[in-house]
Amino acid sequence: MVDRLEDFQKFRAELNEEILGCGHLGMKRLFALDHQAYEPGALDTKTKELLGLVASTVLRCDDCITYHLVRAGEVGWSRKEVIDALNVALVVGGSITVPHVRRAFARMKQIPGLHPEVK
Amino acid sequence: MVDRLEDFQKFRAELNEEILGCGHLGMKRLFALDHQAYEPGALDTKTKELLGLVASTVLRCDDCITYHLVRAGEVGWSRKEVIDALNVALVVGGSITVPHVRRAFARMKQIPGLHPEVK
Amino acid sequence: MVDRLEDFQKFRAELNEEILGCGHLGMKRLFALDHQAYEPGALDTKTKELLGLVASTVLRCDDCITYHLVRAGEVGWSRKEVIDALNVALVVGGSITVPHVRRAFARMKQIPGLHPEVK
Amino acid sequence: MVDRLEDFQKFRAELNEEILGCGHLGMKRLFALDHQAYEPGALDTKTKELLGLVASTVLRCDDCITYHLVRAGEVGWSRKEVIDALNVALVVGGSITVPHVRRAFARMKQIPGLHPEVK
Amino acid sequence: MVDRLEDFQKFRAELNEEILGCGHLGMKRLFALDHQAYEPGALDTKTKELLGLVASTVLRCDDCITYHLVRAGEVGWSRKEVIDALNVALVVGGSITVPHVRRAFARMKQIPGLHPEVK
Amino acid sequence: MVDRLEDFQKFRAELNEEILGCGHLGMKRLFALDHQAYEPGALDTKTKELLGLVASTVLRCDDCITYHLVRAGEVGWSRKEVIDALNVALVVGGSITVPHVRRAFARMKQIPGLHPEVK
Repeated sequence: MVDRLEDFQKFRAELNEEILGCGHLGMKRLFALDHQAYEPGALDTKTKELLGLVASTVLRCDDCITYHLVRAGEVGWSRKEVIDALNVALVVGGSITVPHVRRAFARMKQIPGLHPEVK
Repeated sequence: MVDRLEDFQKFRAELNEEILGCGHLGMKRLFALDHQAYEPGALDTKTKELLGLVASTVLRCDDCITYHLVRAGEVGWSRKEVIDALNVALVVGGSITVPHVRRAFARMKQIPGLHPEVK
Repeated sequence: MVDRLEDFQKFRAELNEEILGCGHLGMKRLFALDHQAYEPGALDTKTKELLGLVASTVLRCDDCITYHLVRAGEVGWSRKEVIDALNVALVVGGSITVPHVRRAFARMKQIPGLHPEVK
Repeated sequence: MVDRLEDFQKFRAELNEEILGCGHLGMKRLFALDHQAYEPGALDTKTKELLGLVASTVLRCDDCITYHLVRAGEVGWSRKEVIDALNVALVVGGSITVPHVRRAFARMKQIPGLHPEVK
Repeated sequence: MVDRLEDFQKFRAELNEEILGCGHLGMKRLFALDHQAYEPGALDTKTKELLGLVASTVLRCDDCITYHLVRAGEVGWSRKEVIDALNVALVVGGSITVPHVRRAFARMKQIPGLHPEVK
Repeated sequence: MVDRLEDFQKFRAELNEEILGCGHLGMKRLFALDHQAYEPGALDTKTKELLGLVASTVLRCDDCITYHLVRAGEVGWSRKEVIDALNVALVVGGSITVPHVRRAFARMKQIPGLHPEVK
């Protein structure tokens, strides 16, 4: 029910390149702004990535959840911490978010640092 | 355009088990609360399942629609009644819900009591 | 935190009249379709009004909730039944719907058949 | 049921100034990007303002609708054209958007070029 | 990550036929109303199709985006103009719409008049 | 354009009491679950409150934003950190969230620790 992480990342990279190369300055700037929002500011990147994960979950965007799960693993959040963040999203967003939380759990099996064997 | 019902149910069961076993009490409780919301109370289960179907449709969650269609068949709603409920969702939610209604019709072909030959 | 029911109904009636008289046939037809969706069909009006209430709650539209609460009282749903329906919406839609449920409870005080003294 | 246009515009101007002056570069850039999205590009400003109005209506944001109605009047859309655009939003977004369309009609009475006497 | 356009259109056509033939008059009328919303009125069909595309994008419905991209190509919008419209949607809807914009770009490769080689 | 914080809190407290006392166990449990989601777990309360604020902002719920702003001040987030979190919400949610961010800035003037004079 979830595609392979490699396929997601390949498609994402190819299309991002196409969008950034399409000649529309506004889109290019929005992509830059989106990237910069997670760079260190008053808050550090680690905290911001968790904000991005919860925002993606309550807005029910599987691709965005996958992206932020990968990032959460990279910046050092543990499986237990990510699950605790997903729980906030689940309570705020309600049972309509459950299918996305299921896919988030399936996705975590493919992500170093977040798969079930990691305590 | 819709996966097999068996595949949906297998994935759903496996991941639910994983979530319920992950050790997060809050998630476990929310799953319980979600289950209890459809048990008989001031309203009977049959009515509540239809409420769940319409809520899932206007919020445009295919997995939730599939789940509640299966339940609608189990608790005794007829195809005609389910379609009449989907129409309320369609009018409230607008044409943006049409793709989900299409998939709901495709899904009903796999559900005893809701497929087109049943009058 | 909620306006008077009379004010809501007066504004609603005046603007509906203006929209229906503005000369756009499509809008007129959508209003008719919205009205017809709650008329008896495979499902009766009483059931459909509850579907409308739950759809309005998970989509978080206070005016729509008010309208369907009034209608719920008119078609004979009790306070306890309406609360049980709102609970389905609350679980599906999550705690983000809580402010709307609060306003629904405040509104019910103004609606015959749904105020707290009615058992 | 709608506040005075002057009050909306005063609050909007004051808070925009506060946000732009709060020292967060990302917010400043997003406000700039939002402004630039409606400047002439492959599409002209007139067309883009109508896109903004419809996007605001299906996403059910009254303040955004008010802003784009004012702009629609400024760039030369007629009342009939604006109503035809609102109809697209109404059909796509469903009857849950009706309260916002009602407030849009109430708001148009305060906007030169869009009030009912203008043909 | 996007299915073939032919598969989408075949599924869409088959299910639309099933829905229109299911005997529910309300659904039939809503489908008609949805169709009529894009016919020439105060606004021409070309403008309305772009409104439909932007509404579909901010509401994040891939099937609706695909449908309106095909229509946008048919009524004569160029690739550059469609991208400029998608940019309005991207700014209004935020980075949560990015995955849908990526799929829109992937889809445009399958649509005459909108693929990258067309200037 | 924002009511007084005291009025919000009074209404919220009164209606919460009414809901908790209405005799529906499911609602009572959901309120408890919502409360518990922000208690220390794998993540601390401070981090979770920021997650709640961002979730509330992208879902565009003014009352929820107000509640989490008050809590953010109480648990020790600074004005600069809250603004940085709101920026993540703004980029993820797009310009449709701008009116809510404006009201968040207006609200922060009423909250100790978050008003503009605090650096």
